[in-house]
Amino acid sequence: MPLRDVLATNAGTYRSWLTEACSIPSMASEPDALTAMAGWLEDRLAALGASVERLTHEGAPDMLLARLGSGERTVLVYDHYDVQPVDPLELWTSEPFTPEVRDGLFYARGAADNKGDLVARLAGLHAYLQANEELPVMVKLLIEGEEETGSRSFGAMVDEHGDKLAADGCIWEGNGIDPAGRPSFVFGAKGLAYVELSCKELGADQHSALAVVAPSAPWRLIEALSSLRAPDGSVLIDGFYDDVVAPSGEDMAMLERLPFDEAVELHRLGAREFVGGARGLELLRRYYFEPTCNIAGIVAGFTVPGQSKTVLPAGATAKIDMRLVPGQDPDAVVEKLRRHLDARGFEDIAIARHSMEAPVRSPADSLIARAALTGATGVYFDPPAVAPMMIGTGPMHHIAHTLGIPTVSPAGVFRPESAIHAPNENCRLEDFERTTAYTASWIDALATLD
Amino acid sequence: MPLRDVLATNAGTYRSWLTEACSIPSMASEPDALTAMAGWLEDRLAALGASVERLTHEGAPDMLLARLGSGERTVLVYDHYDVQPVDPLELWTSEPFTPEVRDGLFYARGAADNKGDLVARLAGLHAYLQANEELPVMVKLLIEGEEETGSRSFGAMVDEHGDKLAADGCIWEGNGIDPAGRPSFVFGAKGLAYVELSCKELGADQHSALAVVAPSAPWRLIEALSSLRAPDGSVLIDGFYDDVVAPSGEDMAMLERLPFDEAVELHRLGAREFVGGARGLELLRRYYFEPTCNIAGIVAGFTVPGQSKTVLPAGATAKIDMRLVPGQDPDAVVEKLRRHLDARGFEDIAIARHSMEAPVRSPADSLIARAALTGATGVYFDPPAVAPMMIGTGPMHHIAHTLGIPTVSPAGVFRPESAIHAPNENCRLEDFERTTAYTASWIDALATLD
Repeated sequence: MPLRDVLATNAGTYRSWLTEACSIPSMASEPDALTAMAGWLEDRLAALGASVERLTHEGAPDMLLARLGSGERTVLVYDHYDVQPVDPLELWTSEPFTPEVRDGLFYARGAADNKGDLVARLAGLHAYLQANEELPVMVKLLIEGEEETGSRSFGAMVDEHGDKLAADGCIWEGNGIDPAGRPSFVFGAKGLAYVELSCKELGADQHSALAVVAPSAPWRLIEALSSLRAPDGSVLIDGFYDDVVAPSGEDMAMLERLPFDEAVELHRLGAREFVGGARGLELLRRYYFEPTCNIAGIVAGFTVPGQSKTVLPAGATAKIDMRLVPGQDPDAVVEKLRRHLDARGFEDIAIARHSMEAPVRSPADSLIARAALTGATGVYFDPPAVAPMMIGTGPMHHIAHTLGIPTVSPAGVFRPESAIHAPNENCRLEDFERTTAYTASWIDALATLD
Repeated sequence: MPLRDVLATNAGTYRSWLTEACSIPSMASEPDALTAMAGWLEDRLAALGASVERLTHEGAPDMLLARLGSGERTVLVYDHYDVQPVDPLELWTSEPFTPEVRDGLFYARGAADNKGDLVARLAGLHAYLQANEELPVMVKLLIEGEEETGSRSFGAMVDEHGDKLAADGCIWEGNGIDPAGRPSFVFGAKGLAYVELSCKELGADQHSALAVVAPSAPWRLIEALSSLRAPDGSVLIDGFYDDVVAPSGEDMAMLERLPFDEAVELHRLGAREFVGGARGLELLRRYYFEPTCNIAGIVAGFTVPGQSKTVLPAGATAKIDMRLVPGQDPDAVVEKLRRHLDARGFEDIAIARHSMEAPVRSPADSLIARAALTGATGVYFDPPAVAPMMIGTGPMHHIAHTLGIPTVSPAGVFRPESAIHAPNENCRLEDFERTTAYTASWIDALATLD
């Protein structure tokens, strides 16, 4: 039976798989559900004829490694089976783990991040096998259960099991569909250094009248923060840009070809202009090739909306997340931050480390990249939007750098309006079906490309 | 019976009054308790032979004006019968409205702020009348029920009933006992301009990866705040100091006589040094004669301790309280802040007004000031600590400026360790008894001083 007919015949079955997967509340806070989700995947993978291995690591949910198919070429497919928490629950229109379809949108936690891609890929493999009896490449599915809490064990597990992961290329979690509806492809990710800055200037909060002589923690923290970033968004930490790899001519040419509707994006953000007034190619250069120093949170003293209290707060805290670009190392950046603060007399500002992730780039013309792009032809109506890397962060460098496997995050179910990490997460059922068809398509492309 | 014997005989009765008063939860959130407290005072005042009038104002608890005694001189006594909220309740060792004595300390909400002074003054009047049959001066007690929520109606009520309040001097809420145990006297109060600064740069919070191009509200607010204050504590708002009245030679001489143990105060605060490294007379000059620009609270984004979330916050807010010194006007200061921000391009930073209170000074050598100081002799063992004004704020200017009545806030039950506005508020029973005796003593002094 031709693939097109297989997809049409099985559409209801594949959708029921998505419903089953999204009915399991596989959040970090629900270890039993994580176990159930891994079991559900094992069953589905076994039914596809895959051999499934559980890779274990102390304190982490099991990671699944499934192998199926054979051929000269091997592809590693990375996804995750855990999902974000559902708070604030009251903002959900339907229950997050009771999937519901409304106006062609499939609503459930995990629908877009990343069970939609994961199940579509399983469905695509199933459809390929129904249409062709066997896979022309070896497929290794690597499915972790710790992504939404920072993939803390992923690096160690890759180090331990790297030989089993060998592949000619890696298909990462889907990068989705861009705001204009184009299938979107990236070949890397920004890194992350997430730290908490805090200071304590007094033993306890004091009556604010004492601020005339007693030191203020919020002012102290603000003085330190003010030394970190200029209003145009550039980061003032000493040596912050030293190791940054500037975009090549080829990179800039890629950006010139990349559609980006500034007015639409400003409207979506509800902003007057972009940081530093950037526009055009310079805006895109910043978007993909500039690191950030963002305040994810700051708090001190009395913060009840609309009320007042005259207090001199004893302490103050800011959560700072820095997105890093190729060349930058998260640990080195935190050391530079420490030295920067010390050099300005801010030794009293403490730095606590949270998540750290290295930036990563992979070639846009690798075999897997070309297969991913070629596979999109005939599945997506619009031409692909090709960008150097995602502006977010993931543990991709363990695959692309440590193991040296060229990696691409291709089109998938995600759209800007998918509300990932938020209430009413959703994906379009047509995107789910297209991602299923696309999976079969890039497998063919990988098997046949020169 | 001599006063001393009256005080000894009635000590238990007076303490029971304090227990009764502090058993009534007269917080702004408990209108019935405010009514009950006003009623309790009316009964006590009537038993002293006072005529009591209720002054009313739309939306405010009734203010009591009681008159008793007669003579050439009239004194106005200001106190309040409302108390602060009790949160966080779990930090109280005993119930806040079930007074308990432990180690000579009387624990209850209101014990020091300001029911201790209020009841001690009632007890002092009672004792005087027991010892002397009649009061040698006319005493007008003005007792409001809205002080802890900013005395919002006090100015209007003073304007309306000013003629009834006429007096030769005013005894304000007790200023208490200083850290070295000396009875403490002030003749004014700093003013207050409490505002909330806020900005919103985006329609909604965004994934922090977008911080590379999307404007940041916390950074914007910090840039604006950074223009307001120098690290040495001086305020950079354009024209902020224009109207400040510098201390006179007499003022500085008063400060030179004022004991202030810097090491003890630094230890109490848990601080390394005072703001700007100030010491000695310069420290005292700042303490009493410098205004402040304090951050009472700041908040934006994700603030859960120990956790991380990568978010670009849409908005940011800071609560700023500025203590003002004589010459400064709260409304003019807020206008200067607006102009200062506008001049630097921060038109997008919104200013919302909270409490506003004018600063106030009264002469330290007025009849009432001299009576208050003379009365301390023989009651307190230590010499008085005389300072120009309290560094905190109260609605004293309505009496001292609007009505032109010389005002002194004299010794009372408050000590730095009284935990006012905090859990386990307390006063020493010996301070309560001494304040009782002191009340009778300054009445004598006021009647007899030249």
